[in-house]
Amino acid sequence: MNGLNNEPMTPQTFLYGCVLEAGKEVVFNPDDDELEHQLDLRMVCVDPSSKDELHLVEVEGQDSEGQKVKAVLASLKPSTLPSVCLGGFTVTPPTVFRLKTGSGPVHLSGQHLIMMEADQSFDEDD
Amino acid sequence: MNGLNNEPMTPQTFLYGCVLEAGKEVVFNPDDDELEHQLDLRMVCVDPSSKDELHLVEVEGQDSEGQKVKAVLASLKPSTLPSVCLGGFTVTPPTVFRLKTGSGPVHLSGQHLIMMEADQSFDEDD
Amino acid sequence: MNGLNNEPMTPQTFLYGCVLEAGKEVVFNPDDDELEHQLDLRMVCVDPSSKDELHLVEVEGQDSEGQKVKAVLASLKPSTLPSVCLGGFTVTPPTVFRLKTGSGPVHLSGQHLIMMEADQSFDEDD
Amino acid sequence: MNGLNNEPMTPQTFLYGCVLEAGKEVVFNPDDDELEHQLDLRMVCVDPSSKDELHLVEVEGQDSEGQKVKAVLASLKPSTLPSVCLGGFTVTPPTVFRLKTGSGPVHLSGQHLIMMEADQSFDEDD
Amino acid sequence: MNGLNNEPMTPQTFLYGCVLEAGKEVVFNPDDDELEHQLDLRMVCVDPSSKDELHLVEVEGQDSEGQKVKAVLASLKPSTLPSVCLGGFTVTPPTVFRLKTGSGPVHLSGQHLIMMEADQSFDEDD
Repeated sequence: MNGLNNEPMTPQTFLYGCVLEAGKEVVFNPDDDELEHQLDLRMVCVDPSSKDELHLVEVEGQDSEGQKVKAVLASLKPSTLPSVCLGGFTVTPPTVFRLKTGSGPVHLSGQHLIMMEADQSFDEDD
Repeated sequence: MNGLNNEPMTPQTFLYGCVLEAGKEVVFNPDDDELEHQLDLRMVCVDPSSKDELHLVEVEGQDSEGQKVKAVLASLKPSTLPSVCLGGFTVTPPTVFRLKTGSGPVHLSGQHLIMMEADQSFDEDD
Repeated sequence: MNGLNNEPMTPQTFLYGCVLEAGKEVVFNPDDDELEHQLDLRMVCVDPSSKDELHLVEVEGQDSEGQKVKAVLASLKPSTLPSVCLGGFTVTPPTVFRLKTGSGPVHLSGQHLIMMEADQSFDEDD
Repeated sequence: MNGLNNEPMTPQTFLYGCVLEAGKEVVFNPDDDELEHQLDLRMVCVDPSSKDELHLVEVEGQDSEGQKVKAVLASLKPSTLPSVCLGGFTVTPPTVFRLKTGSGPVHLSGQHLIMMEADQSFDEDD
Repeated sequence: MNGLNNEPMTPQTFLYGCVLEAGKEVVFNPDDDELEHQLDLRMVCVDPSSKDELHLVEVEGQDSEGQKVKAVLASLKPSTLPSVCLGGFTVTPPTVFRLKTGSGPVHLSGQHLIMMEADQSFDEDD
């Protein structure tokens, strides 16, 4: 449905959004042993209520050796750059998002993809 | 025709555009039981008549558990960032767009994709 | 050659560029009954000679019901945002581009894709 | 290796970078009759030594009728927008890049793709 | 899992992040003879502690003739453009990243892809 891949698995697309604030971590780690989950992160946007300071959005995941690794998704300042496109930054669980600097709120959004075997299916109207 | 996927369904691409203003919601929910619909959102742009305030564009859809979820598509201010590319943010109906802050107008545009079985077809000149 | 899709048709990529000025429409509507045409729009850029005002670039095409629809591709101002990436905004003919506000010139560029059946071919050196 | 297409040809990815200055053209036209070449342009960036003026980066290639066509890749100004993402603007040789305005230097970068038949191969360590 | 290609190899996606500072090179060159590695670079972001100067991020890799080539990934200045999306700039090892100008720190992030033959597999929980 979303052209993500052309393996026999068919991904389904759902909306994903979260809000980051100083001292609050957001975890993406679906409790699901059967299906593969993925986030395609699209946008990071400051909130009108956030202070005019540089907000550094950090993601924590796993590198190729299974070790924890941190990376920076965006640095935004309301008066300079209030939004930035991530262009489909793909992360796989377990993933943690947080503000490394800045007090927020900062909005993170994208698509939550769930890969299903060709013979599995949701009730799409659900 | 647009390379969205390579499943047996063939997507057709149409132009999508809407205008958001304070207090006015725009719903994307085609009345169609047979075909699959999808929006690939491309651009959010302020209008020259909008005030110089931060406009937060919100989308409401469904998360992976069928619950309503809100996410932020963009935060724009005419004097700082009048346009932002969404890079193909895919949403599936039912979807609602609105301004969470700012009075607008703000323009949202992209591609409306309709997936058809290989043996279905539009009259393309229609 | 450009990975657009993996249907039996093979797209060929050509360069597309046009200049928009107040009161001048640019039409993309190849006179061709046999091949499918598509524009993948990439960049909108102000010209150094354009005034420091907000330029709103509009595209007119067809929605899924065959009706004319207008959408906004970009809003640019030389002193704030002189260029914006459209990230591959796909439009199919007939399409019209124009400046809704601003006097320009504004440059629009991208790729012109022509889909050919696998057994058709250009002389690629042509 | 880079997902460009799924035809029997396998593209190989190499790094491409060039520097544009006033009065100096950069030509991309590999002397190669056997393999297909393509540039996926990614970024245009001003140099710290460039003047604070609007730099217009022009590309010259061929349109669908084999005629020369010029298009604008980016307009950048150090104090306003020092870098812009092109998002994978695909051009095929012969191509010429130049500054239409501004004295530079301006940096252009991306991926050089070479399509090889499935039975051809480089020594990848070469 | 991430739709990178549809060859028999299946890529796995891991998080990649590094920090660039003046006089410090970051090398991406996995010690691995069996699997193919690739970086899809997504974002370059200044750190709140970086000075308000133009930071030029350089990448060094190989061109199509096996020669070393340098290209510019981004030029960023905290007060003008603190973050820029690279949109999936693909580089293959051996690759070196460095600041050509500016003292940093500057953050570079993206996806580390490892291509595996269809009959190979990681323990994905590893």
